[in-house]
Amino acid sequence: MNFPSKLVENAVNQLSSLPGIGKKSALRLVLHMLNQKKENINQFGNSFIDLINNINYCSECFSISDSMKCEICSNEKRDRSTICVVEDIRVMMAVENTLQFKGIYHVLGGLISPMDGIGPSDIKVEELVEKTKNSQVKEIIFALSSTMEGDTTNFYLFRRLKDSDLKISSIAKGISIGDELEYTDELTLGTAISRRLPYENSLSK
Amino acid sequence: MNFPSKLVENAVNQLSSLPGIGKKSALRLVLHMLNQKKENINQFGNSFIDLINNINYCSECFSISDSMKCEICSNEKRDRSTICVVEDIRVMMAVENTLQFKGIYHVLGGLISPMDGIGPSDIKVEELVEKTKNSQVKEIIFALSSTMEGDTTNFYLFRRLKDSDLKISSIAKGISIGDELEYTDELTLGTAISRRLPYENSLSK
Repeated sequence: MNFPSKLVENAVNQLSSLPGIGKKSALRLVLHMLNQKKENINQFGNSFIDLINNINYCSECFSISDSMKCEICSNEKRDRSTICVVEDIRVMMAVENTLQFKGIYHVLGGLISPMDGIGPSDIKVEELVEKTKNSQVKEIIFALSSTMEGDTTNFYLFRRLKDSDLKISSIAKGISIGDELEYTDELTLGTAISRRLPYENSLSK
Repeated sequence: MNFPSKLVENAVNQLSSLPGIGKKSALRLVLHMLNQKKENINQFGNSFIDLINNINYCSECFSISDSMKCEICSNEKRDRSTICVVEDIRVMMAVENTLQFKGIYHVLGGLISPMDGIGPSDIKVEELVEKTKNSQVKEIIFALSSTMEGDTTNFYLFRRLKDSDLKISSIAKGISIGDELEYTDELTLGTAISRRLPYENSLSK
């Protein structure tokens, strides 16, 4: 693309460096910005500068937090014997929204992915192993995506933790609530059949 | 969404204020940024601050430009007797890429859209009318989108200019090059039939 202005070109290149945003969309967004108030766009730019320069991670669960200890880790009502292991804060937020989990979290900050060059040492594995040595911890729940990377990470973590006295579980795999069976993929349907439950136990809460 | 950090929330809100980016995508992008070098994200934020504070419009064609007069308007080889009227710099860039147009441009900065509260006084209509009073100008080409807003703007501009001695034209409507007729919508196909050309003239250059 030949841009009539270096400033526009620079802003377009920055926006299109984000995943899923191409040059054409980026240009559309930049032109949208130019129709906004100067003040708003200054705020827009500054929000990312503030973010990257002041971001802080909870020293216990490694989730993003504005203080040294996040709201969940500093909440005394949370059950400190159960740790839910998640990939990132998006999953943590999703689990929190279910209102089904009262324990604490451990944010790995990624999944093991040899294809992307991400090994166990690039994510917070050692910190999790260290944490489980505390006798207060009774159960570890893996809440990782059901993908190749999620399964690899699940397996690696299980191997690292299996010799402890911990109860280790992984979130259930099966049919999504509301799913129509004729459109469910075979792997999921097969898994759901082999992991069938007595009817009384299978009712969703 | 309950964000664990105000900084993240702020950045997500800013990104999702852009058209076509929802909260979930914005959060994905923000987490992607947090994995980047601090320096890169500072540059990212600054690119928009630079843009909005230093942006400049060409005093002749109103396209975005780094100087007072854009490259096209200051190019003496361009034919100043033909003005191509476009909605914004995206269309200008698209027309430039065809290499079919040697004249100069007039960037309206939008289309008339009563639904969005955009009237003729919100776009550069008077400036175009003023420009056509220069006897050097012989032809005006409307290169506006074939939408309700484009057609409205076409019609309004035509009414404002029709009493002049100018040749007024609009870009051709018809079948896209490479289109298969069975998938072409009826309006386009109908227009293409009623505007048929002698075969010798219909060959695309």
